[in-house]
Amino acid sequence: MDFDISTYLLNRKAWVDEALEGLFDPPGRPKPLFDAMSYSLMAGGKRIRPILMMAAYELFRNEGKDILTFACAMEMVHTYSLIHDDLPAMDDDDLRRGKPTCHKVFGDAMAILAGDGLLTEAFNLISSDSHTKNWPADTRLSTIRELALAAGPQGMVGGQAMDILSEHKKVDINTVRFIHTHKTGAIIRASVRIGALLAEADPVSLNALTRYGESIGMAFQIVDDILDVEGKTALLGKKVGADNALEKATYPHVAGLVKSKEQARELIDSAHQSLEPFGDRAAPLRGIADLILKRNT
Amino acid sequence: MDFDISTYLLNRKAWVDEALEGLFDPPGRPKPLFDAMSYSLMAGGKRIRPILMMAAYELFRNEGKDILTFACAMEMVHTYSLIHDDLPAMDDDDLRRGKPTCHKVFGDAMAILAGDGLLTEAFNLISSDSHTKNWPADTRLSTIRELALAAGPQGMVGGQAMDILSEHKKVDINTVRFIHTHKTGAIIRASVRIGALLAEADPVSLNALTRYGESIGMAFQIVDDILDVEGKTALLGKKVGADNALEKATYPHVAGLVKSKEQARELIDSAHQSLEPFGDRAAPLRGIADLILKRNT
Repeated sequence: MDFDISTYLLNRKAWVDEALEGLFDPPGRPKPLFDAMSYSLMAGGKRIRPILMMAAYELFRNEGKDILTFACAMEMVHTYSLIHDDLPAMDDDDLRRGKPTCHKVFGDAMAILAGDGLLTEAFNLISSDSHTKNWPADTRLSTIRELALAAGPQGMVGGQAMDILSEHKKVDINTVRFIHTHKTGAIIRASVRIGALLAEADPVSLNALTRYGESIGMAFQIVDDILDVEGKTALLGKKVGADNALEKATYPHVAGLVKSKEQARELIDSAHQSLEPFGDRAAPLRGIADLILKRNT
Repeated sequence: MDFDISTYLLNRKAWVDEALEGLFDPPGRPKPLFDAMSYSLMAGGKRIRPILMMAAYELFRNEGKDILTFACAMEMVHTYSLIHDDLPAMDDDDLRRGKPTCHKVFGDAMAILAGDGLLTEAFNLISSDSHTKNWPADTRLSTIRELALAAGPQGMVGGQAMDILSEHKKVDINTVRFIHTHKTGAIIRASVRIGALLAEADPVSLNALTRYGESIGMAFQIVDDILDVEGKTALLGKKVGADNALEKATYPHVAGLVKSKEQARELIDSAHQSLEPFGDRAAPLRGIADLILKRNT
């Protein structure tokens, strides 16, 4: 097989970067708000979520580029969550992807507002006629529903809240699972599902892709936890050991490193199983699953 | 004329209170997040924005209750903005409507997340089939567009950012107008417009109501500024003089009290003019405009 995952990712990342770069150019008023949003949006993200969305779409349709607006909206929601998570009142992180975090550059108030702005703008993008007019209203509406549910209190915000509430506490594996499926998993699952919904995937395929999204989402966060223990600050671009300092509810913390690695591997195996019905077209989704297991940043 | 605005407002407020009360009952998990959202949502708001939405709808249709879900979504967006505005990193307010602010009760992290959660949940409510399935998809989509544009960086978030950036600075009347039309005006305008859109109002009526919304939105904020100078803490339920302490860009600050009161009166006159085509059915909207001018809380 000739498929090269690195080329695929680079190529899709370039699409997303270019589309995001154009969103606030020229910046609106007041400029510092738009600068703060752009700063975090363009701070070197790997664009995993938008790429997952496009890769899921491409199982059924030819050109992932068709859904770039939806993919950008997802990246904006992800970026907002990073900005708010990094705030002094939350995880208090100074460094993200090797750069000073949004609040270190623009101050806490502007960082809160930049996050609020990115979250709201994501819904504006999907509902705005200038970006998505050619999509049927009910399709646009169903992507908004997916996104809002995954990002809100029953999803990501709930996971982040549980994470904060569990700091410095003895928690069990079920709480860690709750945090991971909600804080990281919900948005990754929604990325894959929105790609499939936009392609009008049949219900059986949508189910298989949902299971794929759930497996890689959980694996992604377990690997994240492992990297916080074993990774290198220089490579990660954020402080290693930060979870431990806050006594965060992490997978290695409750299950140990060996068991965590085993669990991550099993989840990636199960992701591969979910992709079986899709044959060769699923090469990008398979490649992403494998990379999640092997990543060191 | 028999119309009694006080009864009308009490009645509509009761609808909104009841609907909001049911939203997070039973609360989701983690409970402190849902408690924080409910706490601020039920902290005694006057429900002006949802009532405006229903009053605009009732110009064309009989029962404002039909659109309660949309009205609740608007109140959730308003409440999120109050929670974030009150944070120590923003306006640092301990008191709101006579009660401790969200972050004083639940801590800064949970207050940030409660705001994030309410904002996202508003979009979930409008797009969720369990609440709005009977509305056409394109109508639901157009209300989401209205709401996202009014609340986002081109609207409320932009106004709040400009407000923060203008503290302790000499600003001109145009900057104050920018802050007021964006920070408060955009959401009030959108409330009226969404009511009209849901009623499938004709374009001429929609325009007239848009002008009404803009006039009362600006008047509302000018009166707010005046109350911060002249009001009583006990009545207002928040600290008087807070704007002055932060050297906020307010209308009385740049135009003086006399001119500010004159301007508020002119705006309310102009709101009444916009309502002329609607005859008796506009009595509630007229009553709200008059109350905005006379309010002392």
